[in-house]
Amino acid sequence: MQSFLKISPDSHFPIQNIPFGIFTKLNDNKPRAASRIGDHVIDLSMLEKKGYLKEFIPEEADEVFSGKSLNKFMGLGKSVTSDVRKRIQTLLRDDCDEIKEKESFLKKLLIPIEDCRMLLPVEIGDYTDFYSSKEHATNVGIMFRGKENALMPNWLHLPVAYHGRASSIVVSGTDVTRPKGQTKADDEDLPKFGPSKLLDFELEMGFFIGQGNDLGKAVPVKKAQDHIFGFVLVNDWSARDIQKWEYVPLGPFLAKNFATSISPWIVTLEALEPFKVERQKQDPKPLPYLKSSGEWHYDINLEVSIRCAGTNDFIPISKSNFKHLYWDICQQLAHHTVTGCNLRTGDLLASGTISGPSSDSFGSLLELTWKGTQPLNLASGETRRFLVDGDTLKITGWCQGKSYKIGFGEVTGKILPTN
Amino acid sequence: MQSFLKISPDSHFPIQNIPFGIFTKLNDNKPRAASRIGDHVIDLSMLEKKGYLKEFIPEEADEVFSGKSLNKFMGLGKSVTSDVRKRIQTLLRDDCDEIKEKESFLKKLLIPIEDCRMLLPVEIGDYTDFYSSKEHATNVGIMFRGKENALMPNWLHLPVAYHGRASSIVVSGTDVTRPKGQTKADDEDLPKFGPSKLLDFELEMGFFIGQGNDLGKAVPVKKAQDHIFGFVLVNDWSARDIQKWEYVPLGPFLAKNFATSISPWIVTLEALEPFKVERQKQDPKPLPYLKSSGEWHYDINLEVSIRCAGTNDFIPISKSNFKHLYWDICQQLAHHTVTGCNLRTGDLLASGTISGPSSDSFGSLLELTWKGTQPLNLASGETRRFLVDGDTLKITGWCQGKSYKIGFGEVTGKILPTN
Repeated sequence: MQSFLKISPDSHFPIQNIPFGIFTKLNDNKPRAASRIGDHVIDLSMLEKKGYLKEFIPEEADEVFSGKSLNKFMGLGKSVTSDVRKRIQTLLRDDCDEIKEKESFLKKLLIPIEDCRMLLPVEIGDYTDFYSSKEHATNVGIMFRGKENALMPNWLHLPVAYHGRASSIVVSGTDVTRPKGQTKADDEDLPKFGPSKLLDFELEMGFFIGQGNDLGKAVPVKKAQDHIFGFVLVNDWSARDIQKWEYVPLGPFLAKNFATSISPWIVTLEALEPFKVERQKQDPKPLPYLKSSGEWHYDINLEVSIRCAGTNDFIPISKSNFKHLYWDICQQLAHHTVTGCNLRTGDLLASGTISGPSSDSFGSLLELTWKGTQPLNLASGETRRFLVDGDTLKITGWCQGKSYKIGFGEVTGKILPTN
Repeated sequence: MQSFLKISPDSHFPIQNIPFGIFTKLNDNKPRAASRIGDHVIDLSMLEKKGYLKEFIPEEADEVFSGKSLNKFMGLGKSVTSDVRKRIQTLLRDDCDEIKEKESFLKKLLIPIEDCRMLLPVEIGDYTDFYSSKEHATNVGIMFRGKENALMPNWLHLPVAYHGRASSIVVSGTDVTRPKGQTKADDEDLPKFGPSKLLDFELEMGFFIGQGNDLGKAVPVKKAQDHIFGFVLVNDWSARDIQKWEYVPLGPFLAKNFATSISPWIVTLEALEPFKVERQKQDPKPLPYLKSSGEWHYDINLEVSIRCAGTNDFIPISKSNFKHLYWDICQQLAHHTVTGCNLRTGDLLASGTISGPSSDSFGSLLELTWKGTQPLNLASGETRRFLVDGDTLKITGWCQGKSYKIGFGEVTGKILPTN
């Protein structure tokens, strides 16, 4: 498939991608839906208004692209959203004449990305965070409970998860203020209050729910894919010292409620289809309600880098891959709803930290520096145990095709000092 | 204060209460805001449209009572919502002539409660559940970890909490389907899948956020009250067998995501003001950021009763009181936001199970039957360890004044068999 627009083979956003997001132009304040091709935003509200999507969106649902979130569109369900994405692709194809020659229209439709501001793409109802990387769960287990009891007895039987905080999910580029909270040192009797000293990132990905399910009606694992709209990159910022003191027995709370950052473009399941890979063998075999086809893992390269205050360059600190996850997305969704729990359009289900098998593929500083005992020596000459004020953390991700990439762009965040 | 309407002294809804909710008439399908007096719903959208609230609601915010949730109203902040409530009170007073004699208007304004259906009053963003009853935490601790380690080391230093599931919060009267899930018996090697056998209720109360706070800006404990709109009764249904197997290390997830029931009327902080009581002594002294005035506890009688399938009567099984809680609502809110976490209008913060000191004041069957080892003998001749299909559980609550009650009505839910 070829577009009449010239797109660099290194771009994350060729015609094969066609992700969805919400943007405003820098010079207006009108949030509306967008797709992206190369270095240009595609104003989907304009495509819709001019009638180019007319036969693809149900009449009673018009103006789905003029709002400040994608929820209305995503809620239309796979059959619609999938066709609309294909239609956008068609309009941009070299062998389609519908808009190819309309120069003045194209000038309005395609806006240089540097003239745009990307916003949170979705109004998020509930945010769930899984814990689906065996390597991550094992690493954390070894550090906190020793090698013998690293994995909890339930871990290999079900995709462990917990409810996260939805209100503090922010879009890439939003600064993150170092949180204050209670911490207690092992050798002291009483807790102290102050800024977190062990601020960390977590390399994750997450998927958004398109069409939801009714309360009381579980989604079987074979139908799970119908409810998944697409993926974003996720950085689940974590204050390790606050977490350690507070998390027993009900799980992390303040340690993660101050911010979670996501990338602005939702890459659809359809765009990721060519990059499916087999799941690693699951032993013991999961219970029947978790028996998925095993083809819901994706080969997505993930890279984490850091830019220290006063420097210009991002220095890579980890390379991982989405395919390292043990539990797949259909298993996660089926498990989540098996009690009858209802998912709603716009809910976010994140993977948990994605660590690979080698020590340079770990998805958090906790693991990369082994609880701070093995500081990272950065190429800039600095060292890092945990994040320092002024640090900017970047996660990027992409699938590598033969002649193109399907990319996610990036999610960045800069640490501001406690106020 | 006296109304020109005759209200029984036993009513939960005298003129001193004036709670807020959302209703439809049985014969229409128009959700709108309501208050309540005696056995009548007050159609607030009509009061607003007819201009009776004109000077009390900012002009730019009109039609706050015509929507399907109270969020718009609650977001206006205390100074507005408090004055609007007083205004409604004034209109109903015996010594006010504005609507007293307008018989045909009153007939439309006041709708018999039996002609109405109450709906979920709020669009809930995030739902947080605390764990603030020392008795409950101690009971659970003894059962699962023994007497020596009953309270976790952090419990007396901070109000432990976790994120709950917002999508499955339902209004009183909604049936609850027994959830399926994974459980593992102590004497077996592998988990099994099937309907929960240890289905329980949790007696709780919760408060809704009126005006929220910005991300990054903690709410100091002394300002917490400004953000609290009012209270409802909460039943945090729990599947104890699912919980036991899944909850380590990230806390309860599926065990509670299938349903949480709330009462339909939000009783304001203002209505509860006369029922404030001193907090029990907190030892050790909380850190300064948690130092509240200590006058944010309330004397609210709470009663739990059960109706077995095929019978007519609710049989009392527990009597507790909101004042038994260790951590107060201002401490909870200050703690929640101390990292900079933003609360939004409509967020629900629940207390956790409210158990009293005596064994007939425990707030769950887990405690009342001591893990099922001491079954309850009901007056009907039946016994209960945990909830049985067809059981209806009811929680009610009220403050007892000299000549009136400030009540919460009730929250009920009937258990349906697994589908």
